[in-house]
Amino acid sequence: MKNTFGQSVSATLFGESHGKAIGIVLDGVCPGISVDEEFIKSQLSKRRPNGSTDTKRKEMDEYEILSGVFEGKTTGTPLTIVIPNKDTKSGDYQRSIARPSHADYTAYEKYHGYEDYRGGGHFSGRITAALVAGGAIAIKALEGLGIKIGTHILTCAGVSDRVFCDISADIDLLSTLSFPVLTDCKDEMIKEIEKASQDKDSVGGILQSAIYGMPAGVGEPWFDSVESILSHALFSIGGVKGVEFGAGFEFANMRGSQANDPFEIIDGKVITKTNNNGGINGGITNSMPIIINIAVKPTPSIAKEQNSVDLTKMENTKLEIKGRHDPCIVRRASVVVDSVLALAVCDMLALRYGTDVFLKGLNK
Amino acid sequence: MKNTFGQSVSATLFGESHGKAIGIVLDGVCPGISVDEEFIKSQLSKRRPNGSTDTKRKEMDEYEILSGVFEGKTTGTPLTIVIPNKDTKSGDYQRSIARPSHADYTAYEKYHGYEDYRGGGHFSGRITAALVAGGAIAIKALEGLGIKIGTHILTCAGVSDRVFCDISADIDLLSTLSFPVLTDCKDEMIKEIEKASQDKDSVGGILQSAIYGMPAGVGEPWFDSVESILSHALFSIGGVKGVEFGAGFEFANMRGSQANDPFEIIDGKVITKTNNNGGINGGITNSMPIIINIAVKPTPSIAKEQNSVDLTKMENTKLEIKGRHDPCIVRRASVVVDSVLALAVCDMLALRYGTDVFLKGLNK
Amino acid sequence: MKNTFGQSVSATLFGESHGKAIGIVLDGVCPGISVDEEFIKSQLSKRRPNGSTDTKRKEMDEYEILSGVFEGKTTGTPLTIVIPNKDTKSGDYQRSIARPSHADYTAYEKYHGYEDYRGGGHFSGRITAALVAGGAIAIKALEGLGIKIGTHILTCAGVSDRVFCDISADIDLLSTLSFPVLTDCKDEMIKEIEKASQDKDSVGGILQSAIYGMPAGVGEPWFDSVESILSHALFSIGGVKGVEFGAGFEFANMRGSQANDPFEIIDGKVITKTNNNGGINGGITNSMPIIINIAVKPTPSIAKEQNSVDLTKMENTKLEIKGRHDPCIVRRASVVVDSVLALAVCDMLALRYGTDVFLKGLNK
Amino acid sequence: MKNTFGQSVSATLFGESHGKAIGIVLDGVCPGISVDEEFIKSQLSKRRPNGSTDTKRKEMDEYEILSGVFEGKTTGTPLTIVIPNKDTKSGDYQRSIARPSHADYTAYEKYHGYEDYRGGGHFSGRITAALVAGGAIAIKALEGLGIKIGTHILTCAGVSDRVFCDISADIDLLSTLSFPVLTDCKDEMIKEIEKASQDKDSVGGILQSAIYGMPAGVGEPWFDSVESILSHALFSIGGVKGVEFGAGFEFANMRGSQANDPFEIIDGKVITKTNNNGGINGGITNSMPIIINIAVKPTPSIAKEQNSVDLTKMENTKLEIKGRHDPCIVRRASVVVDSVLALAVCDMLALRYGTDVFLKGLNK
Repeated sequence: MKNTFGQSVSATLFGESHGKAIGIVLDGVCPGISVDEEFIKSQLSKRRPNGSTDTKRKEMDEYEILSGVFEGKTTGTPLTIVIPNKDTKSGDYQRSIARPSHADYTAYEKYHGYEDYRGGGHFSGRITAALVAGGAIAIKALEGLGIKIGTHILTCAGVSDRVFCDISADIDLLSTLSFPVLTDCKDEMIKEIEKASQDKDSVGGILQSAIYGMPAGVGEPWFDSVESILSHALFSIGGVKGVEFGAGFEFANMRGSQANDPFEIIDGKVITKTNNNGGINGGITNSMPIIINIAVKPTPSIAKEQNSVDLTKMENTKLEIKGRHDPCIVRRASVVVDSVLALAVCDMLALRYGTDVFLKGLNK
Repeated sequence: MKNTFGQSVSATLFGESHGKAIGIVLDGVCPGISVDEEFIKSQLSKRRPNGSTDTKRKEMDEYEILSGVFEGKTTGTPLTIVIPNKDTKSGDYQRSIARPSHADYTAYEKYHGYEDYRGGGHFSGRITAALVAGGAIAIKALEGLGIKIGTHILTCAGVSDRVFCDISADIDLLSTLSFPVLTDCKDEMIKEIEKASQDKDSVGGILQSAIYGMPAGVGEPWFDSVESILSHALFSIGGVKGVEFGAGFEFANMRGSQANDPFEIIDGKVITKTNNNGGINGGITNSMPIIINIAVKPTPSIAKEQNSVDLTKMENTKLEIKGRHDPCIVRRASVVVDSVLALAVCDMLALRYGTDVFLKGLNK
Repeated sequence: MKNTFGQSVSATLFGESHGKAIGIVLDGVCPGISVDEEFIKSQLSKRRPNGSTDTKRKEMDEYEILSGVFEGKTTGTPLTIVIPNKDTKSGDYQRSIARPSHADYTAYEKYHGYEDYRGGGHFSGRITAALVAGGAIAIKALEGLGIKIGTHILTCAGVSDRVFCDISADIDLLSTLSFPVLTDCKDEMIKEIEKASQDKDSVGGILQSAIYGMPAGVGEPWFDSVESILSHALFSIGGVKGVEFGAGFEFANMRGSQANDPFEIIDGKVITKTNNNGGINGGITNSMPIIINIAVKPTPSIAKEQNSVDLTKMENTKLEIKGRHDPCIVRRASVVVDSVLALAVCDMLALRYGTDVFLKGLNK
Repeated sequence: MKNTFGQSVSATLFGESHGKAIGIVLDGVCPGISVDEEFIKSQLSKRRPNGSTDTKRKEMDEYEILSGVFEGKTTGTPLTIVIPNKDTKSGDYQRSIARPSHADYTAYEKYHGYEDYRGGGHFSGRITAALVAGGAIAIKALEGLGIKIGTHILTCAGVSDRVFCDISADIDLLSTLSFPVLTDCKDEMIKEIEKASQDKDSVGGILQSAIYGMPAGVGEPWFDSVESILSHALFSIGGVKGVEFGAGFEFANMRGSQANDPFEIIDGKVITKTNNNGGINGGITNSMPIIINIAVKPTPSIAKEQNSVDLTKMENTKLEIKGRHDPCIVRRASVVVDSVLALAVCDMLALRYGTDVFLKGLNK
């Protein structure tokens, strides 16, 4: 379905970096959910460039809810959020020279040159502002069911944070932070990112996400496994190039006896003593926290001169990207990750428990 | 869509490990594709347990094509393949004790105890035989368009193969091998797997796949990015816990100037000098090979005693899995990986070029 | 999705008239539903040709459940039913001459001559046996929620039945009949059909269906209106050429004051005094019975000589259809109509109330 | 998918009658299609109330294209059109009294009272303005392939137009008319509608549509038959209660020898001498015009006093609808019908011929 994700709760994304507006339509939203505009603003604010590690483009993201909300609550009919573009400098972009690791060339092949090339057009990270606004609705809906989502920077520019530990508390902590790390590595990380920036370069990193409070029994065997759905959502985000659940690639170095998570009954509830499977067995939730690591590549836009091609002249050329770009998008991506995870989880819950689940609660 | 994958070309999977049969329905298949039964058999044979590193269950996988093939060619209407189960020993399974890292507990929560628990039921790796049979049709259809898919064991039980190098030749080589490694590490790898087996244990590994010959411009921005679609397909396979494209998690340690793949025109064709993005920019193919690493966890069924719970008595207990199990499924998984990748690629091509693309060729 | 219908509960149809078998895969079925094999047989028996008004082809429809049922109950994983073809006389069919009003020519255009042309191949009414088998599971699941579906022949060969009256009782009556009419018009109707048969001709008719016991609030505004979903399902059946809800085309002759159904509260429940809207307002159920009329065209296969074309020689020709054909498919279609309606209603309920609705009941 | 229709080319609809705006997102649109803004305006103008037979609410439908168009042509990425609401008089609506034959009661049941009840909210005919704007893009795209769509009022208020005759010429004629009838019955029809209006009442009617120029071989057997897809789209429109193809319900009175459409080769092309099947055999186009009749019920909003219920007090009551309403929506619905048919046809063509079909032409 191209720009639509989800089966029962779905999100449709639209807009271009330098067009009139970007936006999102959420459909299948449970009626009666309070829309917390302060939270939407706060999430948009977290996604916004806000310091030395980010682009200098300033967008205030003054969104407008066009439909689907009435008297402060969701109606159940499509909820549309539009965010006008304001601070656009199209002069910074040249049509014909493909920026390496960007979508310029592939868009040109796909859309035969009719694409809006300015600032990456529909492929721009700018579009994620709409995802974040829509995701904020989803995050709040999940909170009502006791389900929490949080993401921190596990590693970036050679500096590492600790892994999730007391997950519920860690997520609570992250919700208060604009730079999401669980230890005091923030300053060092920023310093290393700034170094890359001074070198006209950029850096990537790894995000770690947790989903806490999921009931057991959600998901499907095979094609709609929880891993399939969540990875589908995560790889939608530009720059994400790797996704692993639980021990992930580390499983390659483990034996079954180490890797398996033994079941145990505690307080009448089945839990696992370890959580190498990241809360998912056979594609279905087991009620343990879902743990995901997400690789984010370095921002492709760098100030250093690069080799490239001129697509209209079909000749090799050099490229120096001027414009305003983030030396590192990992921090900003963390908010987007929370957003798409929340949308995907809402969809899985609505499929299992029905469209009114957020009004009626999990009827396990 | 639960057990159905794909939009234009779709696969629907059914069956249980100890039921009457397993099978697959392929829909949207282009008419007029030759059905190469020798190739289907050869793929099934590669997936079958065939040595010391695999389960002792012997299934001959004598499939039957029930529909969709007429006079040796696909008709365009649903193509159904059924594989009867023969060598089933249901006595080996106990209903109530959940095997760690298996789907027993999550299936119990999802299906409220009505699931066919024998041998993992619908969650069993046995079902992948149907995927492989269906995938064989897809692989052959792609070959007709000059698109090749291959997968090798990058690392397993502490032994490593080399990465893909001359990709077209490497895929050709792999197509001839029953134990898919590109170097002479086979014996050592098998030895290490056998060691784990002797220790009543199991091992995991990493598979590396390549898709060669893709035209540029296939895929979608955002939700149906090539990474989204392929990871969705790959995480359908039980045991897969990580997927990365191109440099993947290694991007976290790179700077943009190293990570970006510079464009260059060679012989009038746009290529990239490096391929850290694994053939995909902005979710869309750039005509370079698609490179994927896939983490496979150790087989959960191990002979060692494990802690677990009895779901009906709701009490802690010990579990010793008898049955017949693979100490390592990585080799067998490689054929399944090729199959789901082929099905996903067929779908993406049919969406872009139309349902007759395999008859008419890529009309770029 | 071509041969798959439904979003949460889906049906995938496969097979050809003269192939090895036909079948259906039901996915998203609620676990724990008793599978009533006598009822499946009885429904198949009702669909089978059984007298002077039907084809002479004899198929016993000995179905086999390949998956998804364990210890007599649905498991929740894909439920596959296969019905082998036995009484096939392929010699009766010529490849190249397109039978008027059949799919021969359109299939030839769509599948470029690769289609299995024998007996209409995948387009044959034979395939509806699989729909009926699958529909029987759905009908029983709905019964558990107090929802009943019934269809009678409203008019056929110039003979008319009365419209639905006491709908619950009428449906109960229909469930006991092999020739579904509510008055004693059966003999006259059969006589008129036989007349057409003697004239080497065929007749069409109108079926009337009712769905009783639906809760209010099911369906969607706009694209997934109950009318959209049910008509989508009904027009899947070959020969159906018209669908109307409630007063349908008669609305054209009514004024709003006659057409509107006034609301009234009776016993604390909102009902409508009339039911011109056929149980659906704004695309959503209002708890009144859903009433549908369905036009079925005369069987295209007639023994009379007809003008046609030879598709391979591309020349005009005459055609005399030998084979074994029904002079009227209206009676047999009634069982198919019940089946697709049941499948569609199950899907709508699962989407609204969740996948376990048939186990847990309507939690309105 | 609730408010999204289509698989390869899709439309997502949003907005409420008295909310900020209504709109549509078209996805999967072929790049490079010229966007004819005069045509969009002209279609919106045809849909607008414009005389004695229509509501007095005046909306200028000043739409804005937010995304998906660049330099006057479609980009291939989501095309969003928003139409702000201006002339809203919410005071006319009472929350608790359900208007008969409207969605007020069913929406209340579905959304538990959280729906925006003003003016029918998301169920309002107002939303069709967005469908018409989106449909205009689709109609123009089809024109580029030589495919034309037209709809006229076959009967309304007891006055009848002739049926389609020379279809291509008839469609051309209709494109020039604001009151779409093929004969000079306009004045009489309007007079009869006005009579109903003076009686504080409303009337329904039948629309007849034709799709001209379809290639043979489009559509699917069974669930995605052309009839299934088109009826699904048509029943999305509020007030549509019946859909028939070709002879439709008239088939019930025909014998096969009359009903069958004999094939004939004329100028090397297969045609049918009659077109009782309305251009569709076995669910697939045969290149003859697709002919559809569509029943539209009388406008539910009438000025006459009606019986109804107060949903919050749960008591019987009387209702006099004040507001501004159409005594007949049949004329205005004709533009909406053309729009949804065009969207559905674009989707079917893109599925068969690929997403670039409108740029590259039908490569039959």
